[in-house]
Amino acid sequence: MAEKSMVNVEFNPGGQSVALQKGGLITEAMLTAGVLLPLDCGGKGTCGRCLVQVEGAVSPPNDAEERLLDQSRLEQGFRLACQTRALGDLRVVIPDTAETADSSWRIDLGDLSATQTNSPVITSVDCRVQAPTLEDPRADLRRVLEAVTPPAAGEGEGELWGDPATATQITRMAREKDWNLRVYKRGSEVVGVAGPGDAALGVAVDLGSTKIAAYLIDLEKGEVLNSRGRLNPQVAFGADVVTRLQRAIHNPDDRRQLTSLVRRALGDLVVELSSSVGVEPSCITEMSLVGNTAMTHLLLGLPVEQLGAPPFVASLDQAIDLKAREIGLNLAPGAYLYLPPLVGGFVGADNVAMIMGADLDLPGPCRLGLDIGTNTEVVLTAPGSEHPLLIASAPSGPTFEGAHLSSGMRAMAGAVSRVQLDKGRLVWSTIDGGKPAGICGSGIIDAVAEMARGGIINAQGHLDQSLPQVKVDERSIRYILVPGEQSATGKDIVVTQADISQVQLAKGAINAAAFTLLHLAGLEPFDISEIVLAGSFGSNFDVENARSIGLIPDAPAAIYRQVGNAAGKGAQQMLNNQEARIRAEAIPSMARYLELASEPLFNKLFARSLAFSKNRS
Amino acid sequence: MAEKSMVNVEFNPGGQSVALQKGGLITEAMLTAGVLLPLDCGGKGTCGRCLVQVEGAVSPPNDAEERLLDQSRLEQGFRLACQTRALGDLRVVIPDTAETADSSWRIDLGDLSATQTNSPVITSVDCRVQAPTLEDPRADLRRVLEAVTPPAAGEGEGELWGDPATATQITRMAREKDWNLRVYKRGSEVVGVAGPGDAALGVAVDLGSTKIAAYLIDLEKGEVLNSRGRLNPQVAFGADVVTRLQRAIHNPDDRRQLTSLVRRALGDLVVELSSSVGVEPSCITEMSLVGNTAMTHLLLGLPVEQLGAPPFVASLDQAIDLKAREIGLNLAPGAYLYLPPLVGGFVGADNVAMIMGADLDLPGPCRLGLDIGTNTEVVLTAPGSEHPLLIASAPSGPTFEGAHLSSGMRAMAGAVSRVQLDKGRLVWSTIDGGKPAGICGSGIIDAVAEMARGGIINAQGHLDQSLPQVKVDERSIRYILVPGEQSATGKDIVVTQADISQVQLAKGAINAAAFTLLHLAGLEPFDISEIVLAGSFGSNFDVENARSIGLIPDAPAAIYRQVGNAAGKGAQQMLNNQEARIRAEAIPSMARYLELASEPLFNKLFARSLAFSKNRS
Repeated sequence: MAEKSMVNVEFNPGGQSVALQKGGLITEAMLTAGVLLPLDCGGKGTCGRCLVQVEGAVSPPNDAEERLLDQSRLEQGFRLACQTRALGDLRVVIPDTAETADSSWRIDLGDLSATQTNSPVITSVDCRVQAPTLEDPRADLRRVLEAVTPPAAGEGEGELWGDPATATQITRMAREKDWNLRVYKRGSEVVGVAGPGDAALGVAVDLGSTKIAAYLIDLEKGEVLNSRGRLNPQVAFGADVVTRLQRAIHNPDDRRQLTSLVRRALGDLVVELSSSVGVEPSCITEMSLVGNTAMTHLLLGLPVEQLGAPPFVASLDQAIDLKAREIGLNLAPGAYLYLPPLVGGFVGADNVAMIMGADLDLPGPCRLGLDIGTNTEVVLTAPGSEHPLLIASAPSGPTFEGAHLSSGMRAMAGAVSRVQLDKGRLVWSTIDGGKPAGICGSGIIDAVAEMARGGIINAQGHLDQSLPQVKVDERSIRYILVPGEQSATGKDIVVTQADISQVQLAKGAINAAAFTLLHLAGLEPFDISEIVLAGSFGSNFDVENARSIGLIPDAPAAIYRQVGNAAGKGAQQMLNNQEARIRAEAIPSMARYLELASEPLFNKLFARSLAFSKNRS
Repeated sequence: MAEKSMVNVEFNPGGQSVALQKGGLITEAMLTAGVLLPLDCGGKGTCGRCLVQVEGAVSPPNDAEERLLDQSRLEQGFRLACQTRALGDLRVVIPDTAETADSSWRIDLGDLSATQTNSPVITSVDCRVQAPTLEDPRADLRRVLEAVTPPAAGEGEGELWGDPATATQITRMAREKDWNLRVYKRGSEVVGVAGPGDAALGVAVDLGSTKIAAYLIDLEKGEVLNSRGRLNPQVAFGADVVTRLQRAIHNPDDRRQLTSLVRRALGDLVVELSSSVGVEPSCITEMSLVGNTAMTHLLLGLPVEQLGAPPFVASLDQAIDLKAREIGLNLAPGAYLYLPPLVGGFVGADNVAMIMGADLDLPGPCRLGLDIGTNTEVVLTAPGSEHPLLIASAPSGPTFEGAHLSSGMRAMAGAVSRVQLDKGRLVWSTIDGGKPAGICGSGIIDAVAEMARGGIINAQGHLDQSLPQVKVDERSIRYILVPGEQSATGKDIVVTQADISQVQLAKGAINAAAFTLLHLAGLEPFDISEIVLAGSFGSNFDVENARSIGLIPDAPAAIYRQVGNAAGKGAQQMLNNQEARIRAEAIPSMARYLELASEPLFNKLFARSLAFSKNRS
């Protein structure tokens, strides 16, 4: 067998160096090296997020690159990693301004915190175990089990058990701790041991398609000790779930990599969290995780082909208790991963967690819940109905994640997050107060609302081309929000006519979904007594501006409640509370999922709402 | 980091070629290449089993090699692989006469066969499942579970469940089989699916330290469809359990390799067995496995340090149900591996299986069970006692495995297995009728018995040095059973004075153990109404000769029962029979284990029995 010709690719900063088959794409080498850039377009060469600077022999620029990069950039060696093939050894520089998937940041906890419970999943028992002797050669595991629950006379084998992984830990730990142990029990199973008095910790995870949020919780005190977030590394395979699913469906290697990337990210988060409080990951005795259907299927290694075409059927929709080690997590040896059930279709376990986190499953008046994202989950509570939870998933698009916007970026340092009208001009501020690099979701809402207010766009949403800040050429009609000389990238930060259309599409989809649900429930808008805005985006935008552009219903400000990451809160509630799990597991049977694409009313309303109104009030 | 200098080692026949660090031992390259020779001595250079012929630059012969190999052999390039270091690229020839661990042979089934049961572990249900539609988007797993057990009205979630691995198989198989499926249930869990009417198969394994026997069983018909055996590849780390444990304890890499070697061998056996009947391994829905404590600990990856020193405590002694995939076996996706409990000390799950397979746990008169091996398990049933099973493990040594004998070999093709006295000379026959290569266990029993009968050895077991067939030099006193010109190896096949001492040691240990147990139970030899000889060795030797040399008690021939591989039979009984598992799990509480080393009576009897008697009758 002839050896394939290999070249060496070195990445900077970072210094990773990997072998790549000659003729391979730079993005392939990036996957190997673990340099993960968020490829919103999934590698089609249209989003420009994989911009890198290359030294060495590479393929000539192709059409996609000529479209996105001007001649001077190309001459400086700037290229799209997803389009550029290595023909010799390369040095690849990742620009400072690039978001990389290993960037880790603190999650905004808001007012979320776990609480104590009367029905814990994990209980801890300190015990003094008899050391073995020749006369008492009971196995290590058995002597620990019998120390926790002495075998009743005549009853024979006790109920308590442990698996071989737990026995392994017991054999080692018992001798290290001189047979004084804290035993972590989960029902009738011992899932791990530690030194006497050691904490019992758990991790709750909100596995988003963009961001993973993980919370470290003291299970006895019910306190959130720390939290960590990071970009879901799967962004290297596309910004949206559909792009990733298509990659997974068409290439088994991609599917395996999507699975292993997210498993590794979870493992890294666990290590970060446990070391942040100075303990070993083996003190983590339970994990709960919520995510959408595609995310949980890829995480568990379930097939996804059937998720890519109607009738979009999940492989598994029930709540799952799985040994965490089965997805490569090193927690307590017998620790479980718990996933709540999913409703079906595009309503995943994350929505079940959001519904519980926002208390929409509890009895009460008619409420509307919105979790705005690439798909916006719309939940209407219909009291007294057989299915008191009506759920739909509106195709609002990735606009508010910063994707598909000309100057879009995620809500990170450098993102323009607030825009205000000041004497006919738009003034802006960034998340961190630093130089702006792009606009995030809350920034585009403010910008569009204030542009409408100031007459920069008309009632139909068209930019006034007579203004000096509006530039028109064959590529776009755009409002220059930040000129290149003031931006971190040196490029203008703009709002284009196409960006405004994206916002119109999103608001159209969300409103049409909400009104379709109301209609089917036989309710009117004024029946709604509360509108819950869930998700970190829904908690960070300006409600007044969102209302004014019609993104959310035109209801009194007082009935709005911004609840933060309700899915994350739901995950925390489920972590160590049997009752919360019972609540979550009851949600699918309370819910009725509406496939909007087959609802004529939705389609009619969606089309009609595309007419943009400057001010709906 | 400077690269380490590597050399290439090629093995023939086979043609495997592997890289080895310069200066590394040939046995290390063998492990990498999967060329596994049984290193009885564990690599100390004393057993000579790793004899190979080497071409290339190697270390000069050391003392161990000079002791075992004469000058002419060394000049032909013959070396001990465990002592020889590679200094350059090598070609290594494995002699024809070597036993390799991948040699696979049919197991003698004897009269063993599984039977049908009223309490099966696995049941099969054929069902027609509704295909999903947009109106009925229940997940694949759920629709299969509900097809098997329709959810009772008002009862909510059904009891039946399946794990993600099973859901994965269902998603694929349901579409392939157009939603007509056979569902394999294990209690309330679905462990796999197949086409309608497909067989439900199981595998029962007797994991011996020398040989692995695996039986493929049709779970519905209760028939043994096929069986396969192979050498336990761990023999490359030493013939006996103690040597392997020491290797595992002193080197974590060795421990991991001991685990992975035996897991791989089980996987290979599963593939061989399933392909022998033309089905996929995914039709195998259950596995039962019995083995001694060290074997099961290494298989499961449990710690073994505490098995290597008093009080010799197991990490885990209870019955285990483990997902087979957790030890790397690809059976039905949700399939379990069942291991019965162990008694403790050196009485493992294999002895529990043997006791059940030989019905020694059933009520009845006083019986004695012997499973002769490196350790001989001695079981005395003491009717009416609190612990009606008295168990001891006699240190009989590896003599009858063919190890530690000058011309010893395992009971394979080429082994002298029968010896008879004919006109003052010993005549022999081999297992396969071919050229002899060595003597196996049954051969040495015959040889010693007939030598005593013919006066070749005296009452003390000393060889008559006046006989022409007896050679004496500084290396040994030996009887030439087969001269070199008639043997397959060209070397004399001999019985030495040291070999005779090995047999004396073995019989002394076994008898002392049996009498110690009788004494402790307050019984006399004539109370024994049946003597059960279990194990393949115990079923293949000549009972009359074994009695005459005092290896087994001097009881009437009629009370002896040779039951074959009772442990394997026990494993088969447990495979698909809940009642057999309940029986097995009751055995530890019926049993009392005697640590012989701390019994003064045993030590006295053992010492006394070393006086050899020519003929005890």
